[in-house]
Amino acid sequence: MIRRGEFDVIAQSLAPLSDTPRGLGLTDDAALYVPTAGRTAVLSTDTLVAGVHFLPDDPSGDIARKALRVNLSDIAAMGAAPLGYLLNLALPDTATDAWLDGFVAGLAADQETYKITLFGGDTVRTPGPLTVSVTAIGEVRIGRALKRGGAQVGDRIYVTGTIGDAAAGLRLLTDPSDVSDVNAEFLCTRYRRPQPRVAVGPRLVGLATAAIDISDGLVADLDHICETSAVAATVRAADVPLSGALRAAIAGHVLSLPDVLTGGDDYELLFCAPPTAHDALIALGAELDVPVTPIGEITSGRDVTVIDENGTPVALSRAGHTHF
Amino acid sequence: MIRRGEFDVIAQSLAPLSDTPRGLGLTDDAALYVPTAGRTAVLSTDTLVAGVHFLPDDPSGDIARKALRVNLSDIAAMGAAPLGYLLNLALPDTATDAWLDGFVAGLAADQETYKITLFGGDTVRTPGPLTVSVTAIGEVRIGRALKRGGAQVGDRIYVTGTIGDAAAGLRLLTDPSDVSDVNAEFLCTRYRRPQPRVAVGPRLVGLATAAIDISDGLVADLDHICETSAVAATVRAADVPLSGALRAAIAGHVLSLPDVLTGGDDYELLFCAPPTAHDALIALGAELDVPVTPIGEITSGRDVTVIDENGTPVALSRAGHTHF
Repeated sequence: MIRRGEFDVIAQSLAPLSDTPRGLGLTDDAALYVPTAGRTAVLSTDTLVAGVHFLPDDPSGDIARKALRVNLSDIAAMGAAPLGYLLNLALPDTATDAWLDGFVAGLAADQETYKITLFGGDTVRTPGPLTVSVTAIGEVRIGRALKRGGAQVGDRIYVTGTIGDAAAGLRLLTDPSDVSDVNAEFLCTRYRRPQPRVAVGPRLVGLATAAIDISDGLVADLDHICETSAVAATVRAADVPLSGALRAAIAGHVLSLPDVLTGGDDYELLFCAPPTAHDALIALGAELDVPVTPIGEITSGRDVTVIDENGTPVALSRAGHTHF
Repeated sequence: MIRRGEFDVIAQSLAPLSDTPRGLGLTDDAALYVPTAGRTAVLSTDTLVAGVHFLPDDPSGDIARKALRVNLSDIAAMGAAPLGYLLNLALPDTATDAWLDGFVAGLAADQETYKITLFGGDTVRTPGPLTVSVTAIGEVRIGRALKRGGAQVGDRIYVTGTIGDAAAGLRLLTDPSDVSDVNAEFLCTRYRRPQPRVAVGPRLVGLATAAIDISDGLVADLDHICETSAVAATVRAADVPLSGALRAAIAGHVLSLPDVLTGGDDYELLFCAPPTAHDALIALGAELDVPVTPIGEITSGRDVTVIDENGTPVALSRAGHTHF
């Protein structure tokens, strides 16, 4: 239990993270923020609940990072660059000062990594599970934000990085008997510490027609694009990029290909772009050292279809991984 | 239990509240917002937990309004006008569709009252108590925001409205045996449905040197101003404006004067201004039909002292009402 009062927690633990003048040293009722001239503010917010969105025993620094990064991923999916965040922290009595120190250290490390600062927030106690909401603030040139609704028939569908690692990591963490080889640590880290594609997102402006980050699962998030853009999509399962660790996990029956296609929490970018942008996208991936892989095409209609190497639709038991 | 999935809840219940184009119909990863030219964005966020910040059995529409209004109060205390908000809603399984309908109706009514719209948010399930975070977005002219740190020795201290009603309402709601007269409903409504001073706040720009809203209690919030401004304050207890209902509650021993001075949740404005601003402030209160009452003076030093009619310090058992 943290025996300090709210104001001491803010002054001692959180104020050192704050931005001046925006956060006003966390001594005021609100933060002040003027976007850069010619840019729009991009506001993303996500709530993470212990036992629902992360494992209650996860290291507190990882929980802090995940709460930040899932929002930085949303900012990147809009083609925006992050600036800062607001933090709403509902602490159970079981949280200790050491736990909070680890949480703050996780925030501090990611502030350094992503060049962001704390604008403000609220800290309360809860009789329930730890609940963390982060509201990330980013910027993109006015009128240039990437949206879900811009996909066009004939566009190619791309993903960054590799898909399915986080789903495998979650499976391993919740059923430790499956932790059978050296790949497990890689997969668990992919679940616990997602890598938002903050460098890629802003560079997709002018190239991509639509973008989203993969939080609910490849198929479910592609479905969000199709619904908003009023198009259909075909994904070639064999082209979906998989890590070596994930291939080993599939071979070891930790999870199946449909689990990969519907598992959540990868926080890679999924985007659409016309064929004319292909060379620029591949060059961009090479420049940023992030794999950028075409996995299918946008077609007319409304459904998402995944086909195998013979063109046969792959059966999926569920559309996606819901956090609700 | 709400049997609809997250996306149906968003599309059916929340999207009708959303702003276009800022909220993008709640179909994207983030909201887009460009402040009015010459104005700074003001971002306030507060988390309310059932059983901590409101009573679990409070009507869901009142919970929604309170979550909004405590933030609109913060926006007003900065001298800013509200524009919209983000909503983070962690729903327990006990929440029903009827409960959510009432919550959404409360938001809709307040959106109309305060001319604000929903920019975005996140809806999740929780095994714990209902947890609501609202991030309000407002605007004020660049460089003109009211802050806590501007109070000057010689300033007068003012409050809007009446003080202590919400503390009495909370007392009555948690100990129903005290509900003994017709004033109870007024006091309980003051607790459940605070009236943020959105009309007054922006008009204090250019008149007040420092401002805060009274959420932690008159003495505690004045102490925040004193700490940030590096000044002391003397409050004349006899000048603190009390409603007729509260006077009856004090006479009926529902609560004492120290309870009034330290009770929270009034969401009135507490501000400092030089004597030269007095006539303008009184005229402003008359114009807006909101009582504006001088209750003391800023002095040199650091402490908050409350004195009775003989100049004797009033003993306070605690500084304020903490929500932590």
